[in-house]
Amino acid sequence: MLKVILIGTGNISKFLFDVLNAHPSVNLVQVVGRNKQALEYFAKFTPVSRNFEKLMEADIYILAINDSAISEVAHQLDINKGMLVHTAGSVSMEALPAKLRRGVLYPLQSLSGSIPEKIREIPLCVEASSEEDYQLLEKLAYCISNRVEHINSEERRQLHLAAVFANNFSNHMFCLASEICKDHGVPFDLLRPLIRESCNKIMQLTPHEAQTGPARRGDQETIDEHLEMLKESRLQKIYSTLSESIQTTYGKEL
Amino acid sequence: MLKVILIGTGNISKFLFDVLNAHPSVNLVQVVGRNKQALEYFAKFTPVSRNFEKLMEADIYILAINDSAISEVAHQLDINKGMLVHTAGSVSMEALPAKLRRGVLYPLQSLSGSIPEKIREIPLCVEASSEEDYQLLEKLAYCISNRVEHINSEERRQLHLAAVFANNFSNHMFCLASEICKDHGVPFDLLRPLIRESCNKIMQLTPHEAQTGPARRGDQETIDEHLEMLKESRLQKIYSTLSESIQTTYGKEL
Repeated sequence: MLKVILIGTGNISKFLFDVLNAHPSVNLVQVVGRNKQALEYFAKFTPVSRNFEKLMEADIYILAINDSAISEVAHQLDINKGMLVHTAGSVSMEALPAKLRRGVLYPLQSLSGSIPEKIREIPLCVEASSEEDYQLLEKLAYCISNRVEHINSEERRQLHLAAVFANNFSNHMFCLASEICKDHGVPFDLLRPLIRESCNKIMQLTPHEAQTGPARRGDQETIDEHLEMLKESRLQKIYSTLSESIQTTYGKEL
Repeated sequence: MLKVILIGTGNISKFLFDVLNAHPSVNLVQVVGRNKQALEYFAKFTPVSRNFEKLMEADIYILAINDSAISEVAHQLDINKGMLVHTAGSVSMEALPAKLRRGVLYPLQSLSGSIPEKIREIPLCVEASSEEDYQLLEKLAYCISNRVEHINSEERRQLHLAAVFANNFSNHMFCLASEICKDHGVPFDLLRPLIRESCNKIMQLTPHEAQTGPARRGDQETIDEHLEMLKESRLQKIYSTLSESIQTTYGKEL
């Protein structure tokens, strides 16, 4: 049995708890957090504590807290034997104390409360300070997902940046589309099948192959008409910046 | 039986052909197009013609050709009794000759060869020059999809603009993410579950609710780090423009 302690009570911690608590090879020995109310979620199944100074013994301590607090909290923990890992996309493994056995377990997913559909397909980016510890952490990772990847800190930083484009910025595009719909009294819901279909395409094609639209076709007439329809300068700037970028991407082919 | 003639041999025409040809209430009497080779696709099941001057008789003539050619071709057709409709998102119904019974049948979908997954959920935006003709066209529309919407030309124009954000621009975000991955030797495939999950979210939540990421959280430290990581000025401009736009959207809440 892998003995695991979760430090932190946010969305990632809850997600890991739900998955690991149900796994026969894992013993979740303790959850540690500041927030008394948040700890109630875990207390039904596992011993909880608000005392960061006296942690129980475990093989792996998972620090699932805000990126900006990782280094500070990690340096205050009193860990003797186990391995300490964090779960952040953009924080280097080096942010953890050099005297400890260190690692990273980064679920490449946007976790916000509800549990994602196909948990066992979520990529887990794993890194550790020794080959032995990598194998230990990999063992834990396979208890969570089938998709475990050896990714170093620099690669993970780049993946996190790419994820901002793929997830946060694409969602903002949906958001702007819904603003346009709202402003003109048409239901955003009409666009949902289109969005689903675009995403289905990306599961098979490269985004480069899947691109369509006026900018891709070089249809300047429609681009100009759209720019005129957008009354807000913020939206005009986004429309022209992205259309230019698409044309730069495909420029050589036109 | 509704007698229908398709004019044009592109993706929309093929899509409509595949669906309508299989429908017991529709008689596809003819497909007309310039391109001999493209007509072969239809010729196995239906009479085809390259002569735009002598069309057969039908209840509804569907003009499924390039946006920019609609008005010109429409004015050259010799239609006596039937109704003429086009299928374009950004072209007004007024582009068709005023002396004819006119309409629009716009499938709000990106059709590029392969048939979309849930055809009967594709929204069809329908408009006609008289109430009687609306009902006729609506009848045909329900042979294609369960989702038929009465949308006028101005609403349709706005929907088409919104679709550029929701589909074309979001796909470009996937494209930029894949460029970042490629430049740093990490597989874009790792991002696919994230993209699928983001799209799943949008099927239930509003994009406004679903937004996550550094800009949404007001995490300036990560934004600055990402801007530094992006070596290309085009990507920097997109990153900062979109992050500012997200912050404008959520600014009042922070």
